[in-house]
Amino acid sequence: RINGDRLWDSLMEMAKIGPGVAGGNNRQTLTDADAEGRALFKEWCEAAGCTMGLDQLGNMFARREGTDPDALPVYVGSHLDTQPTGGKYDGVLGVLGGLEILRTLNDLGIKTRHPIVVTNWTNEEGTRFAPAMLASGVFAGVHEQDWAEAREDAEGKRFGDELDRIGWRGEEAVGARKMHAFFELHIEQGPILEAEGKDIGVVTHGQGLSWTQVTITGKESHTGSTPMPMRRNAGLAMARVLEKVEEIALSHAPDAVGAAGHIDIYPNSRNVIPGKAVFTVDFRSPELPVIEDMVTRMKEAAQAICADMGCEVEFEKAGGFDPVEFDPGCVKAVRDAAERLGYSHRDLVSGAGHDACWINRVAPTAMVMCPCVDGLSHNEAEEISKDWATAGADVLMHAVVETAGI
Amino acid sequence: RINGDRLWDSLMEMAKIGPGVAGGNNRQTLTDADAEGRALFKEWCEAAGCTMGLDQLGNMFARREGTDPDALPVYVGSHLDTQPTGGKYDGVLGVLGGLEILRTLNDLGIKTRHPIVVTNWTNEEGTRFAPAMLASGVFAGVHEQDWAEAREDAEGKRFGDELDRIGWRGEEAVGARKMHAFFELHIEQGPILEAEGKDIGVVTHGQGLSWTQVTITGKESHTGSTPMPMRRNAGLAMARVLEKVEEIALSHAPDAVGAAGHIDIYPNSRNVIPGKAVFTVDFRSPELPVIEDMVTRMKEAAQAICADMGCEVEFEKAGGFDPVEFDPGCVKAVRDAAERLGYSHRDLVSGAGHDACWINRVAPTAMVMCPCVDGLSHNEAEEISKDWATAGADVLMHAVVETAGI
Ligand SMILES: NC(=O)NCCC(=O)O
Ligand SMILES: NC(=O)NCCC(=O)O
Repeated sequence: RINGDRLWDSLMEMAKIGPGVAGGNNRQTLTDADAEGRALFKEWCEAAGCTMGLDQLGNMFARREGTDPDALPVYVGSHLDTQPTGGKYDGVLGVLGGLEILRTLNDLGIKTRHPIVVTNWTNEEGTRFAPAMLASGVFAGVHEQDWAEAREDAEGKRFGDELDRIGWRGEEAVGARKMHAFFELHIEQGPILEAEGKDIGVVTHGQGLSWTQVTITGKESHTGSTPMPMRRNAGLAMARVLEKVEEIALSHAPDAVGAAGHIDIYPNSRNVIPGKAVFTVDFRSPELPVIEDMVTRMKEAAQAICADMGCEVEFEKAGGFDPVEFDPGCVKAVRDAAERLGYSHRDLVSGAGHDACWINRVAPTAMVMCPCVDGLSHNEAEEISKDWATAGADVLMHAVVETAGI
Repeated sequence: RINGDRLWDSLMEMAKIGPGVAGGNNRQTLTDADAEGRALFKEWCEAAGCTMGLDQLGNMFARREGTDPDALPVYVGSHLDTQPTGGKYDGVLGVLGGLEILRTLNDLGIKTRHPIVVTNWTNEEGTRFAPAMLASGVFAGVHEQDWAEAREDAEGKRFGDELDRIGWRGEEAVGARKMHAFFELHIEQGPILEAEGKDIGVVTHGQGLSWTQVTITGKESHTGSTPMPMRRNAGLAMARVLEKVEEIALSHAPDAVGAAGHIDIYPNSRNVIPGKAVFTVDFRSPELPVIEDMVTRMKEAAQAICADMGCEVEFEKAGGFDPVEFDPGCVKAVRDAAERLGYSHRDLVSGAGHDACWINRVAPTAMVMCPCVDGLSHNEAEEISKDWATAGADVLMHAVVETAGI
């Protein structure tokens, strides 16, 4: 069993870095706070006897040696970056849960056959630089490294430049490592486990995602002196598309969700009819054809709305991934561990994207989930109990050690 | 007759300060560019033999003496500040048209009985600091000076601090001056004059305005893992209110307009359901009861929409003014001048707010308008012809000189 108090203390210690405004965190990727969080993680890993690897995208790899020199490592981890108004557990629990495994194995003097490597993937959240899971995506061969480095934040700063600026670029080629398996512990970020009183979610699948950035161009003009029939109001056209996004997602409910979290209006002046609206539509479903249908219908609706209003519309794919089926062997290791430890559990489809979704393409992968209060995440009020965290890390350790062999 | 070439050259010279990105201007109030524009205007006024007065809110007053020491001055002017993506003529034509009067009177050696004072009012646009026509509003006793100085821009900078920073605060008490009359030349910012082929708009009324800042609070949560029925999407609630704003304005058409030019979403992250939307609804009409009806119906609709969606809504008045009737004597002076000079003209209701709308409360006031291409304003592509500018300034001069006496 892992040491739940120690895990919790580490979570609280990490949460002091990049504090939010309402009890959560703002430790966005490649900020100074991210650098500080990385340094603390490295210090803890080295204190636990690990060596720290660092690749060219800042992905961190803390290695505990195994007994078999030829055995590939079992990887475990998640991400330390947060949303601008994010919680203390999203991602962090998976990284520090991995570290807690190493600390517990040290306490117990247990050696595994395969090495164990705890990872912190760069820019999982995708809020500062779209898309999400950027560096694990490059690791898994989904994106080109150059393309990833050229991603820009809202101020036009490049990912690669910001990585250099905070001093966390390594020399190791991205994706050079081979994995025996990968496990990720994460809070559910949804309401099911809590509602059903289950300790553990055994994640069998992840739903797919499509991000479409929509740019509607109307015509800037005066809100007072432009007659209603002469207006080409890009903000109003956007409003109509947002209503369609809701309607389209609901038409596939409960197997789909849709919303726009990112909205920018130009020139954003009280007495100027918006000449431009840029927003990102997020559609998700466990079924790829459902995602494709939603995107197609949203584009058709936006085209019709804009044609009717004298506006133009353009679409750009800003990110996405297909629905994922995790490795049956790894999934079974998670389920067996929960069973063995006596935790109540159920199979789950992950509603969110995770680094595990990309790593699943290059290594046998599975995820462990623990409940979170009211299913709330991407909110500073995100909350979990110490018991939930402990159960999740326990199951994670048993699945990892089972897979790494003793 | 004024010198149309000289007026045009001055317009083009001023437009070099705070250039936009598409041929227009970004010379927002109390920026460094504003300071530069003020310095150029002062230099030109002093070269024309004027003394420059400056009040505690940065309102500028260039005075050309009259022959009667007891006569109150006739004021003429507008504003040099622009929208973030504004045109070269909105406001500027009225200030430099006033300066051109003085230059022409100098050329012709004409002395007027009343002094003539050309003004540049601070923060007419209201885009950086709401509300619009801020400093003329304090001058006219509509707002308190302390309140005006405490207005904040989007970055939280105070109006008073920014005025000090750019070094354009004077010592004169705001509103201390008494006026014999006030005239303002402005581009129409609407399509009527051009469509009807008229040279001059004789502005008899100004429509009223109400700005309501609406804050909708929902709940930030994950776009992927939050089931549709659990969402409290403040962005979607806003979209529904925007549709109502359009519907309500159209129900009063053609006697009303409505739109939202300012929209901010929080935390504005692609994978976070918006927890908060802040936007400003701009309703206008020449009829006060129509404005009041629109605001009431918008608030009721927003309350119903938000109650239905589990969101909260708050309203704050962010600016506004009642419909205005200009002084019949000054209006007649404008109409007579157009008639005498042989320019085609028609009476107009101003669709936009102007400093003249406030000054009308403390002095007999009227406005002259000239056409603008496609009625387009608050857009960098705002355009007028040299002939239109010349006609407008000619009529302005004749109305001013008529009122100032020779
Ligand atoms: N787990 C998580 O919040 N990941 C961010 C990517 C996503 O939007 O699903
Ligand atoms: N004329 C002008 O654009 N004034 C700005 C105030 C308004 O929004 O009407």
